[in-house]
Amino acid sequence: MTHQETIVALATPSGAGAIAIIRLSGDDAMNIASQIFHSVSKKKLDKQKTHTVHLGHIKDGSRIIDEVLATIFKNPNSYTGEDVVEFSCHGSAFIQQEIIQLCLRKNARMATAGEFTLRAFLNGKMDLSQAEAVADLIASDSEASHQLAIQQMRGGFSSEIKRLREELLNFASLIELELDFAEEDVAFANRDDFQKLISKITLVLKRLIDSFATGNVLKNGIPVAIVGEPNVGKSTLLNALLNEERAIVSDIAGTTRDTIEDEINIGGIGFRFIDTAGIRETTDTIEGLGIKKTFEKIEQAQVVIYLFNTQGIENNAVEKFNTEIAKIQNKYPQKQLIVIANKLDTISKERSVELTSKITNLQLISAKSGEGIDQLKNTLLNFVNTGALRNNETIVTNTRHYDALLKALEEINRVQEGINIGLSGDLMAIDIRQALYYFGEITGEITNDDLLGNIFANFCIGK
Amino acid sequence: MTHQETIVALATPSGAGAIAIIRLSGDDAMNIASQIFHSVSKKKLDKQKTHTVHLGHIKDGSRIIDEVLATIFKNPNSYTGEDVVEFSCHGSAFIQQEIIQLCLRKNARMATAGEFTLRAFLNGKMDLSQAEAVADLIASDSEASHQLAIQQMRGGFSSEIKRLREELLNFASLIELELDFAEEDVAFANRDDFQKLISKITLVLKRLIDSFATGNVLKNGIPVAIVGEPNVGKSTLLNALLNEERAIVSDIAGTTRDTIEDEINIGGIGFRFIDTAGIRETTDTIEGLGIKKTFEKIEQAQVVIYLFNTQGIENNAVEKFNTEIAKIQNKYPQKQLIVIANKLDTISKERSVELTSKITNLQLISAKSGEGIDQLKNTLLNFVNTGALRNNETIVTNTRHYDALLKALEEINRVQEGINIGLSGDLMAIDIRQALYYFGEITGEITNDDLLGNIFANFCIGK
Repeated sequence: MTHQETIVALATPSGAGAIAIIRLSGDDAMNIASQIFHSVSKKKLDKQKTHTVHLGHIKDGSRIIDEVLATIFKNPNSYTGEDVVEFSCHGSAFIQQEIIQLCLRKNARMATAGEFTLRAFLNGKMDLSQAEAVADLIASDSEASHQLAIQQMRGGFSSEIKRLREELLNFASLIELELDFAEEDVAFANRDDFQKLISKITLVLKRLIDSFATGNVLKNGIPVAIVGEPNVGKSTLLNALLNEERAIVSDIAGTTRDTIEDEINIGGIGFRFIDTAGIRETTDTIEGLGIKKTFEKIEQAQVVIYLFNTQGIENNAVEKFNTEIAKIQNKYPQKQLIVIANKLDTISKERSVELTSKITNLQLISAKSGEGIDQLKNTLLNFVNTGALRNNETIVTNTRHYDALLKALEEINRVQEGINIGLSGDLMAIDIRQALYYFGEITGEITNDDLLGNIFANFCIGK
Repeated sequence: MTHQETIVALATPSGAGAIAIIRLSGDDAMNIASQIFHSVSKKKLDKQKTHTVHLGHIKDGSRIIDEVLATIFKNPNSYTGEDVVEFSCHGSAFIQQEIIQLCLRKNARMATAGEFTLRAFLNGKMDLSQAEAVADLIASDSEASHQLAIQQMRGGFSSEIKRLREELLNFASLIELELDFAEEDVAFANRDDFQKLISKITLVLKRLIDSFATGNVLKNGIPVAIVGEPNVGKSTLLNALLNEERAIVSDIAGTTRDTIEDEINIGGIGFRFIDTAGIRETTDTIEGLGIKKTFEKIEQAQVVIYLFNTQGIENNAVEKFNTEIAKIQNKYPQKQLIVIANKLDTISKERSVELTSKITNLQLISAKSGEGIDQLKNTLLNFVNTGALRNNETIVTNTRHYDALLKALEEINRVQEGINIGLSGDLMAIDIRQALYYFGEITGEITNDDLLGNIFANFCIGK
């Protein structure tokens, strides 16, 4: 390991709280910390064991800045793999600034976004897909996105990729070895085994690529468009769906949310209601001027809720609804469509039976009383393929990985063609190397500054 | 120590960040933590030494919630004096909730505001004025308010009060002892020494009470009113004063602020500009309709800046300004008044000399170019008695302490009167006990649930 500059950053959210953590990492972390931290029991910080905590004061000369706890982690047993010192100080923004400024004056420098994790990657504490999972984990806001990030951080995905890469690398070496002995016409690589491996890799790549559709929606939430005339109860419906969730979060301080959410967590899965604010204000219907906007909304969605008001239906209007619903279904056969009549509480039992018989696949609800809401939640959940999640299968959630997998599959297909037409080893080796390159890009065995820059720029400072 | 329920709370600010800390304290903290935390090296958490850190996973059954660091503090060597476990987890709001919910299911309960510090007080880890300083420290936003809180937290103030209380308590006991031997007419308490003590206490109390005027402004910022006609450059002036500060904070992530501040930090002292938004919008002048509002503003201020525009002064207007300034000075002889002419950059050298000669105590500045701003800052700072702060004298900053000191002084004065008129020991003893009561209220030797409730309600949850 070459000399690493010591970096410093606030690792907890900014703003006032009981505690803030300031993190130092690098070759001089222990030295800088020793200069500004004075243990109450006069212990020398750099003489202490790794993973121990010490009470003391941060001082700028004789001026006391704060009473803090200093936790030390000695390389390589730290998050970054370097010497790390974490100060747990009182959570005043003023104190945070003073301590960081003091560290800067002692020759630390401000960490860039994600730099602690970047160093963890560069020092071999985690591979690239695991590092990316750290950012996903911090951003996770539903059980599904959280579980995907945890799985990826624990290396489930990369170990599968690494295994394939090693097997393929092994064959690549054998084939390249053959080239060195070209004149002798020996075959080190068993062509049957090679065909088996390529078939296996093709299968795994296809499964991973297919999993992205699920992974992407689980991670980012399932986009849902609610269409319908104004005042049919869209915001009441959103509130009804949100209700249970709110009850859960309300007794934990700091987790209260605005009344109307764009994303609603149902059974651990995030549902993103597209442009709901807009929906509530526009007067778009399938017929009329709003049709373009409605279709735009549907384009972005995976699930479409067609909402209308039981009261608003004259008998002759039923036809109109059926026509509109059919229109959406014809135009977007891939989209999941839910037809809902709201304000069930305002009509008679007979009328509800009649409506159900006349309108296809109708669900009756009362957003106000909550009737039918649980059933609606189940309907929404049924659209999501959570089987893979439950079975702990590897699910790809990251667009960068998805792209690399697509490219790897392309190369593997080329290798397959090569096998089919009996291509010479030297040409096949090029395609294999290219596939290996894309595998390596996922886990970070192959990397470059641009790639790393792009990935870690999305991190917060302090991580 | 009786059985203490185990409490749990998020100790870092809510919102996303690299790290969040969840804190458990109480008799079952170690037990609850052991149930949900699984060390990567299979170590038993409750078998580990105090002040050590352990890497592992928080699990709900077999489901992994996060990879965390667990730090353990064994009673009495913790913040609260109880067993404490702190989990340092990834800073996702979802993960924070999951871990807290899990602790709640294992029979911890949510901590109330300030409950960790309340327990620290009840367990004798700090006295009441030190506990109050913790909240002040977290709220501190300038060097002065920070230094006052640090001083109080380190016990500078309470040790002075405790010393006086002990001496007085000693005399009270002697005087009460005399009462037991009333028939024998002995004097255990030397009346000369007693008079000396009462004089000393009176002096100290007066000094502390006087220090509150300084302490209060240093803690809460010095209130400054800017008065003057619209468009003379008030917001430019505020920006010019703010400039340096902004340059400092801008390279620390998360500390950027809104452009226009109500409070500006000058030389480590906070200056609160009263209702500056309002000032910028209203058209109040000393003459005319705005006079009432201007005077209201001045009432609240300690420093008044009278701002006008060099360009706006015709020669005959100079008289008007002098009259207005005199009016303010006569009505508020106690207020510090600064007269400033802005837009120095738009007039000639001769004109500026002329203005300075005609208007009393005039300072010329250019908020735009920054000329004169440093001088203005010095003028503002000179109004603040920072001598006591520099000399590390005890300064009272807390209204509750101030009230108790006033009441204690009242009782001590009554004792003095008693000495003067040769009051009998039994009557004097009552006044002394009452004075002792108020001393005790400051440090928390005397306390009740209401008082504690009021104090700790101002804390954040998690502290």
